[in-house]
Amino acid sequence: MDPSYQLLADKLHRQIDARTYLPGDRLPSVRELAKDHGFSLETVLHAFRLLENKGIVEARVRSGFYVREPKLRLVAAPTKTQTIFRAKDVAVSALRHQTVTFGTSKQVVPLGLSLLGSEVLPARKLAQTAASAARRYPVETCNQGPPAGIEPLRQQLAQRANGWGCFLSPDDFVITCGASEALHLALRAVSQPGDIILVESPTYFGVLEIIQGLGLRVVELATDPVQGIDLADLENALKRFPRVAACLLVTNCSNPLGYSLSTKTKQDLVRLVTRFGVPLIEDDIFGDLHRPETERPKVAKTFDPDGSVILIGSFSKTLAPGLRVGWIVPGKFHDRVLELKSATSLATPTLPQLTVAEFLKFGSFDAHLRRLRKFLAEQVYRFSSAVAENFPLSTRISRPSGGFILWIELEEDFDALQLAADALNKYRIAVAPGNIFSATGERYRNCFRISCGHAFSPRFSEAIQTIGRLAAGSGATKRIANSR
Amino acid sequence: MDPSYQLLADKLHRQIDARTYLPGDRLPSVRELAKDHGFSLETVLHAFRLLENKGIVEARVRSGFYVREPKLRLVAAPTKTQTIFRAKDVAVSALRHQTVTFGTSKQVVPLGLSLLGSEVLPARKLAQTAASAARRYPVETCNQGPPAGIEPLRQQLAQRANGWGCFLSPDDFVITCGASEALHLALRAVSQPGDIILVESPTYFGVLEIIQGLGLRVVELATDPVQGIDLADLENALKRFPRVAACLLVTNCSNPLGYSLSTKTKQDLVRLVTRFGVPLIEDDIFGDLHRPETERPKVAKTFDPDGSVILIGSFSKTLAPGLRVGWIVPGKFHDRVLELKSATSLATPTLPQLTVAEFLKFGSFDAHLRRLRKFLAEQVYRFSSAVAENFPLSTRISRPSGGFILWIELEEDFDALQLAADALNKYRIAVAPGNIFSATGERYRNCFRISCGHAFSPRFSEAIQTIGRLAAGSGATKRIANSR
Repeated sequence: MDPSYQLLADKLHRQIDARTYLPGDRLPSVRELAKDHGFSLETVLHAFRLLENKGIVEARVRSGFYVREPKLRLVAAPTKTQTIFRAKDVAVSALRHQTVTFGTSKQVVPLGLSLLGSEVLPARKLAQTAASAARRYPVETCNQGPPAGIEPLRQQLAQRANGWGCFLSPDDFVITCGASEALHLALRAVSQPGDIILVESPTYFGVLEIIQGLGLRVVELATDPVQGIDLADLENALKRFPRVAACLLVTNCSNPLGYSLSTKTKQDLVRLVTRFGVPLIEDDIFGDLHRPETERPKVAKTFDPDGSVILIGSFSKTLAPGLRVGWIVPGKFHDRVLELKSATSLATPTLPQLTVAEFLKFGSFDAHLRRLRKFLAEQVYRFSSAVAENFPLSTRISRPSGGFILWIELEEDFDALQLAADALNKYRIAVAPGNIFSATGERYRNCFRISCGHAFSPRFSEAIQTIGRLAAGSGATKRIANSR
Repeated sequence: MDPSYQLLADKLHRQIDARTYLPGDRLPSVRELAKDHGFSLETVLHAFRLLENKGIVEARVRSGFYVREPKLRLVAAPTKTQTIFRAKDVAVSALRHQTVTFGTSKQVVPLGLSLLGSEVLPARKLAQTAASAARRYPVETCNQGPPAGIEPLRQQLAQRANGWGCFLSPDDFVITCGASEALHLALRAVSQPGDIILVESPTYFGVLEIIQGLGLRVVELATDPVQGIDLADLENALKRFPRVAACLLVTNCSNPLGYSLSTKTKQDLVRLVTRFGVPLIEDDIFGDLHRPETERPKVAKTFDPDGSVILIGSFSKTLAPGLRVGWIVPGKFHDRVLELKSATSLATPTLPQLTVAEFLKFGSFDAHLRRLRKFLAEQVYRFSSAVAENFPLSTRISRPSGGFILWIELEEDFDALQLAADALNKYRIAVAPGNIFSATGERYRNCFRISCGHAFSPRFSEAIQTIGRLAAGSGATKRIANSR
C-alpha cells in the first residue's frame, strides 16, 4: 500500500485538478492540514514536496504552498544526465569568454552571468560601510594585510559557520579574491597536471576553465535535476580511475541545475571520498540563497572526519561581486593553500575585506539575506513562468532549490548554441549556452542557462519572449547539423 | 689618453682626498663646474657618476652631489654574479614563507619585505579618496567590473605611460591584483610546464615562487651590481636552450640589486630577445622610484617592435600595497592574459581600482612621488651608512639606482641564513636571507636583503647594530658548515 503522504498528495492533486483551488491560490497550511486530517506535520510536508516535484504546487515565502500556473505545472524538469566514464581534457569554447565579456556590458540584457541586479544589492549601505571603514582604518587600508586575510573577517566567518553545521575558527579560513581564486587554489593544492577531477555534469563553466588552465582532466558524473549526483557512479569512478585528485561539487543550490544534496547524501558522500583518500572540494557559494521557506542547508564539511573537505564560499552572490571577497577552509591543505595564495596574489585587498567584516558585524547581513532570498524566489518563479508561457511545450525547466539560476532544456536536436549566438548578436540578449557547461563543449547543445538575479521587468519579459520565438523557430540553423 | 670626464673625476677625487670638501659637504653644482672649467654638462655629470660608482660622492635630492661618509666610501659594491648555464627546477625554501608571513607582523622590525612604512604612504588622503569613491559610485563598488579592469584607471595608466617612453591606450592594459598576479598571468600566457624562464640572478623570490608553482624551470643570468645583466650571456642562453619561454627582468631599480639597465641596454635587449622570438616580461614595479635627481627611466617596452614585451607594474610600491592594484600590458598576449585573468579571479575588486583612478586624477600623485623619491633616497643613504658603520669592513653593500632595497654581501663563507634565523628568532628582526633569491636556495648564502622603506629611527638603528654584531660574530654556527 502507498504510504500516507502519497495518499494525501493524491487527494490534494485531485482537489486542484477539480479547481477547488485555482492557479495562484494558497493551499491550506501544513499545520491546518495536519490538524484537520490527523497527519503528522512531516507527512503533510512530504506530500507537498511530492506535489512540488511534480510542478503542481509551488512553495513561496513565509511557509505557504500555492497552486502553480497551469503552464508552469506542465513543464517537466530537465532530463537526468549520464556519467561518462572517460577522463577528458577540458576545452571550454570561446563562447564562454564571450559570455563573460558581454555579461557585464550595459548594452545587453543580462541573462548570461549569475550576477545579481544592482537594485537588490545593498549598494548604498555597503558603500557607506566601505567609506566609514576607509576613514576609520586609513593605515590598514593602505597596508598589505596577512596572506590569510584580516582577522576580523575570519572571525565573522567562523561565527557564521555554525549556521552551516561546522565548528570552525578564524585560523581555519583563508580569504581570497572571490570563490574563483579559492577554487583555483584548492585545485592547485590537491593536484598535479594530468590528474583527474570528478565533477557533476553539467558543471559551472568557470570551474571547467580553471581545470583546463591547470592542465587537469575531468570525469563528468551523472546528475538528477532534483537529487544531484549519484553516489554509485561516484564510487565506480573512484574505483576505475587511479589518478583522481579531487571530487568537486556545488552541494547546495548547484550551478546550473539548482539541486541541493540531502544531508544524508552529504554524509554518505564524505564517507565515500574519504574511504578512497580523495579530497572533496565543496563549493557552497549559493548555500545562503536556499529557498526562503527552508532552513539553511548544511555543508558536507559538517561530516569531515580529517580535514579532507575543502570548503569554499564567497560574498559575490549575496553582497557584492565587485568586492571580490571569497574564502576557503582548506582543511588539511591549509598550509599549502596559504603558500599558493601568498605566491599568487600575496594578499587579498584590505579595504573590501574591512568592508565585508564591518557589514557582517553591524550591517544586518542576516536581515539582508532574508530579503534577498524572498526576492530571488519570486524572480525565479516569474522567470520560470515567463519561459513556460513563451517556449514550446516540450521545453524542460529546472526547479532550483535556491539560488537564481534556471537551466532550460529544449528538444534534443535543438541548437541552443546557435540560439545563444542569435540572441546576443541580433537582439543583444546574453544567455549562457549549455555546451560550455561540459568539458569539451559537446554535451548540452540543446540547453542553456539563464540568470534570474534581476527584478523581472518588461525588459526581461520581452527578452524571454524573444528567446522563446527563437526556441520555437524551425529554420535549418535552429537544428543541430549533425544530430546525435 | 683618458677622456675629459675621467680627468675631471680624478681632479675632484684628489680635492676630496685633500679634505677640500669634507664628508657631508655639498660639491659645486654640475652647472657651476661646467661653467668654471669649460666642460659640457654631460662631461661633468659623467665625472660625478664615476665618483658615485666608486662610492666617493653621493647624489641627493635637488640635483646635488655630496661627499660621502668615509665609512660608506670604503664599502665595495656586491660582487658580480655568474651565469649558470643549466636549467634548474625551482625550490624556494620554507624560509621564504617565513619571510613573508612574519613580514607584516607588527612584532618584528620590518627589514624583510619591500614594503613602505605607513608614515610615508598617503594613508589619510587615500582613505578619503576611497571613502568618497565609495559614496559617489555605490553601484560600481558593488558590481563586478570588466575582467580588464575599469576604464578610468586604464585611461590614467595610458596617459602616464608617456612618461615611461610608451604610447599606449586604455585597451592595452589589464588591471590585476598587484604585480604578483600580473607576473603569474604573464608566465602562464607564454609558457607550458617544463619550459625555461631566463631570470637575472639574484632574483626576487616572489618571481621564483610563481615559477615554481607553474612547474617551470629557470636559467639564472649573471648580473653586475651596477650594469645589470650581461647581454652576451643572455644570447648564449638563448642559443643553448631550445625551450626558453620568456626572459623575465626588473629593468629599473631591480630587486634585490638595485641596478637600472641603461636605455641602450634596454634597446639591445629587446632586439636580442625578439630576434630569438622570445617574449620579454618586463617588471617595472620600481620604475617610478628612481633617484630624485634623475629622470624617470624608460622601459624596454619603448622599443617593442611587435608586442613581444609584456610590461608589468603596480601601485604597491608607491601608493598602497593594501589596495593590491597592479597592471599588465600584455602586448600580443593580450587576449590570452585576459582569458586567464577572467578564469582565475574574474575581475579585480572595483573599489581599489576606483580609489587609485581618482587618486591619479585628483590626488597629486606626481607630487606624492616626488616627496616619496626624496624620502626613500634619504632612507637608503641612512640605512647604508648604518650598515657601513656597524658591519665588518669586508661587507659589501649595493648602491641602488632607486627603490628602497639594499643587498648586503658578507664574507664568502658567512652563513647569512643562520644570521636571518637568529635575527628573527632571538631579536625579532626580519631580514630576507640571500639564498631565497636563487632557484634552489644554494646561492647567496652569504648575502641578505634589507628594506629601507621606513623612516630610519632608533628602532632601526638598534636593529642594524644587532645584525651587525651577528655579522661580526665568529661562532661556529656563523660559518657555512660545508664552505664552498
